[in-house]
Amino acid sequence: MITIETEVTADFPADELAAYRRAHLDALHTLQAARPGTGAHRDNLGWLTADRWATPTQLAKLTTLAAQVRATADVLVVVGVGGSNQAARAAITALATDTSCEVVYAGTNLSAAYYQRLLASLQGREVTIDVIAKNFQTLEPGIGFRVFKPFLVAKYGADYASHLIVTGTPGSPLEALATAEGYPFLTFPTDIGGRFSALSDVGLFPMAVAGLDVAELVAGAMAERTALLANPGPTNPAYAYASLRQFWLAHGGKLEVLGHFEPQLDFFGRWWTQLFAESEGKADSGLYPVALTYSEDLHSVGQYIQQGQKDLLETFLVVAKPSGSLAIQPSGVADGFAYLDGRDLTAINRTAENAVIAAHRNIGVPVTKLTVPRLDAAAFGALFYFFEVAVFLSATLQGVDPFDQPGVEAYKALMFAGLGRD
Amino acid sequence: MITIETEVTADFPADELAAYRRAHLDALHTLQAARPGTGAHRDNLGWLTADRWATPTQLAKLTTLAAQVRATADVLVVVGVGGSNQAARAAITALATDTSCEVVYAGTNLSAAYYQRLLASLQGREVTIDVIAKNFQTLEPGIGFRVFKPFLVAKYGADYASHLIVTGTPGSPLEALATAEGYPFLTFPTDIGGRFSALSDVGLFPMAVAGLDVAELVAGAMAERTALLANPGPTNPAYAYASLRQFWLAHGGKLEVLGHFEPQLDFFGRWWTQLFAESEGKADSGLYPVALTYSEDLHSVGQYIQQGQKDLLETFLVVAKPSGSLAIQPSGVADGFAYLDGRDLTAINRTAENAVIAAHRNIGVPVTKLTVPRLDAAAFGALFYFFEVAVFLSATLQGVDPFDQPGVEAYKALMFAGLGRD
Repeated sequence: MITIETEVTADFPADELAAYRRAHLDALHTLQAARPGTGAHRDNLGWLTADRWATPTQLAKLTTLAAQVRATADVLVVVGVGGSNQAARAAITALATDTSCEVVYAGTNLSAAYYQRLLASLQGREVTIDVIAKNFQTLEPGIGFRVFKPFLVAKYGADYASHLIVTGTPGSPLEALATAEGYPFLTFPTDIGGRFSALSDVGLFPMAVAGLDVAELVAGAMAERTALLANPGPTNPAYAYASLRQFWLAHGGKLEVLGHFEPQLDFFGRWWTQLFAESEGKADSGLYPVALTYSEDLHSVGQYIQQGQKDLLETFLVVAKPSGSLAIQPSGVADGFAYLDGRDLTAINRTAENAVIAAHRNIGVPVTKLTVPRLDAAAFGALFYFFEVAVFLSATLQGVDPFDQPGVEAYKALMFAGLGRD
Repeated sequence: MITIETEVTADFPADELAAYRRAHLDALHTLQAARPGTGAHRDNLGWLTADRWATPTQLAKLTTLAAQVRATADVLVVVGVGGSNQAARAAITALATDTSCEVVYAGTNLSAAYYQRLLASLQGREVTIDVIAKNFQTLEPGIGFRVFKPFLVAKYGADYASHLIVTGTPGSPLEALATAEGYPFLTFPTDIGGRFSALSDVGLFPMAVAGLDVAELVAGAMAERTALLANPGPTNPAYAYASLRQFWLAHGGKLEVLGHFEPQLDFFGRWWTQLFAESEGKADSGLYPVALTYSEDLHSVGQYIQQGQKDLLETFLVVAKPSGSLAIQPSGVADGFAYLDGRDLTAINRTAENAVIAAHRNIGVPVTKLTVPRLDAAAFGALFYFFEVAVFLSATLQGVDPFDQPGVEAYKALMFAGLGRD
C-alpha cells in the first residue's frame, strides 16, 4: 500500500486546499463507484478491475508462453512504443535479476542507427519478437515489424512464425494477421488504453519473460485497489495527491517534479511522465510532468528547483526499505571522507533524501512523499494502479478526458501526408 | 558548424524580437572579446580557449594513457557526477563503436542497489577507475572512491594504484593524494567549472579510452569558436539562439524543450539540461530545460506540447546527414504498411521530424532548428562549444552569473549536518 504525506511551509494556503478537497469529493466517489462497461468512460475502464483481464487462467497462459520463450531465446525484443512498452520496461529494469532471457526494446523510434546497432547486437543469439500494438496503425511498431519479420525469416526460415508473438486487440487486423501466419496472439484489451495497460498482457508478458512474478504484481495492484476503495474521504491517498495537483494548477502551477533516490525507478518515471502528460496536457492546461533521478539530478536541475521560477510542485517516491546495503569502509588514505567511515550507503541516501525534501519545502515548494514499502513486484503493481487512479481523478478535477489524446493527430496528419499514406 | 533557423507563426512579435536583439548586442561583443584571466568572470573562462588546455602535447598524453588502459582493462569506470561525467557520457554513448574497453559510470548516486549491480557486472573483468572531482568534496564521487579503492586493492593488491586514475584541480588535496599513493593524475582545469569541462581532461580522457578521436573533437570545437567570433551581428547563431530564449523568458516563457530524432543524442540532452538549468535557474527566473527524444517522446509528452499550457519554446537538434540507412522491405503479409515499401528509414524519420516541427509551429510554439552536419567527433566538439557560448550569452542577457550554483548549498548544508561532517 502506498501512503501519502505532504509537507508545506506556514504560508501555504492549507485551509483553501482543505476546502477544495471537501468540495470535490464527488470525483472520488464517482471513481469508487465506477465499473467497466457502464457510465461515463465505460469503454476505457478495463484497467480498474485488472484482475478481470489478468485472471489466474490468463496468467497461467502468459507464464507458460514466457517459459517457452525463456527456454529457447537469448533475447526478447519488445516492439512497441509509449504505453506498449513503458510499464514492462519500468518493472523489468527495476526488478529483473534472472539473466536467462534479456529483454530489449525496439519500435520506439525511427532511427536507422538505432536499428543497425540493435541488429548487430543480435548476431549469433536466439531471438523472439513481441510486437505490441493496439490496432497496428502506429508507424514505429509497423517499422519494427518490417525490420524483424525479414530478420526472423532470414534466421529461421519457414519456422519464423514460432519466434514472433503479437499482442493486439481482439478483432483487429493484427489478430487476423496472427491467425493467417500462425503467430501466437496475446490480448491488448479493448477497453484499456495504452498508458493504462500495465496489468494486461501488454505489460505482463514481457515481465514474465524477464522472470518477474506477474501474479504477485497483479495481486499488489488489486490490494491497492482495495485500499483506495476503502477510504471515501479527503485523506484517500490517490485523491489527496490528485487534488493537491489540481489545486496547484488552479493557482498558477506549471510543473510537477517526480523525484526519487533510487535509479531502479528511472523507467518508472518515464511511464509516469507519459501517463500524466497524455492524460492531462489538454485545453491549454495541465502540469508539465518531469521525472528526476536523485541524487544525480541534484547536480543537473537542483539549482533550478532551488532558485528558478517558483511554480513547481514536487512529489517524492520514497522506498521505505530499499534493496541492498553497502557499508562504507575506511579507505586507509587521506581522502577527506573519514566522516563516512562505517556508515551504510542506504542510510546516507536517506539522509540526502530528507535534506532535499527539507531544502525544497523550506523555499515554499509543496512536497509530497508517496511511500512504497519496498521495490518488488507487488509494489510495482501498487504503483501502476495508484497512479492510474490518481490521473483519472486529477484529469476529472481538471475537467479533461483522461483517456483521449487528440493533440497527437496534428503531426500524424502531416506525417502521413508526407509519407503518402491514404 | 552549427546553423540556426527559427520558424514562427504570423502572430509572433518578430519586430520586437529583432529590436531586442539589436539592443543587446553588447553581450555578444563582450563575449567575443572575452579571454581567460581578464575582465569579468576572469577565473571561469578557461573553456573559451579550450585548445590552451587541450594542447597537442596534452592530447598526446591523454591518448597514450588511454591506450594503456585499453590494452589492460575490459572496463573503465568513470566515477564522477554532473559536469564530471555528462560530456563524456554524451559523446561516448553517441559515437563509440570500438568495444575493446567498455566505459561505465558510477559516483552518480547514493544507491546501494546500483553499486551492487555494478560490482556484480565487474566480476572476472579487468577494471580501471577514473575518479573525476574538481576538489573532491562532493559526496557521490567520494562514495565511489570509497567503494572502488577497496575493490581494486582486493583485486590487484599492492598494484592497485596502477588501476586508479584521478582527475582533479592542480594544488587540490586530490593531487596530494595522487602523489602520495602514486595514482596517475589528470587535470581538472582551475578556470573551468564542471559543466563547461567537456573539452578538458575531464571529458576527453574517458572519450579517448572509448576510442573517440579527441583531437578531431577539440578541432571541431575550435572551428565553431572561429565561426562564432566571425559574426558580430544579430544573426550570429549562438546569439540568435540565446536572445530568442531570453526574449521568450521576458514574455512569460516557462520551458524550453530540446528535441531531436536520434537516440544517439539522448545523453547529450542530459548534458544540455544541466548546462542550462544550473547556469540560469537563479533569481526566481530561467527557462526550465527539458530534453526529449523523438519520435519516442511524441508518445509521451507530444500531447502536452500540442495542447497543454502555452508557454514553451522548442529547439530541434537536426542532423543533416544521420548515420546509417535502412531500406524498408515489403513484408509479404497484409500488415497495413505497404505505403512504406522501399522507403529508407532515414527519409521516414526526416518526414516525421518536419511534420512535428510544422505541427508545433502551427500552434504558436517558436521553433528553432539547430543543424549539425553529421554526428561525429567534430560535431560533438562544435555542439559542446556552441551551447557553452550560448548559455554564457543567455545568462548574461538574463542578468545572472552563468558560472555559479549557489542554490545547491541549501540541501548540502542540511545533508552534511545529518552526516555529521564538520
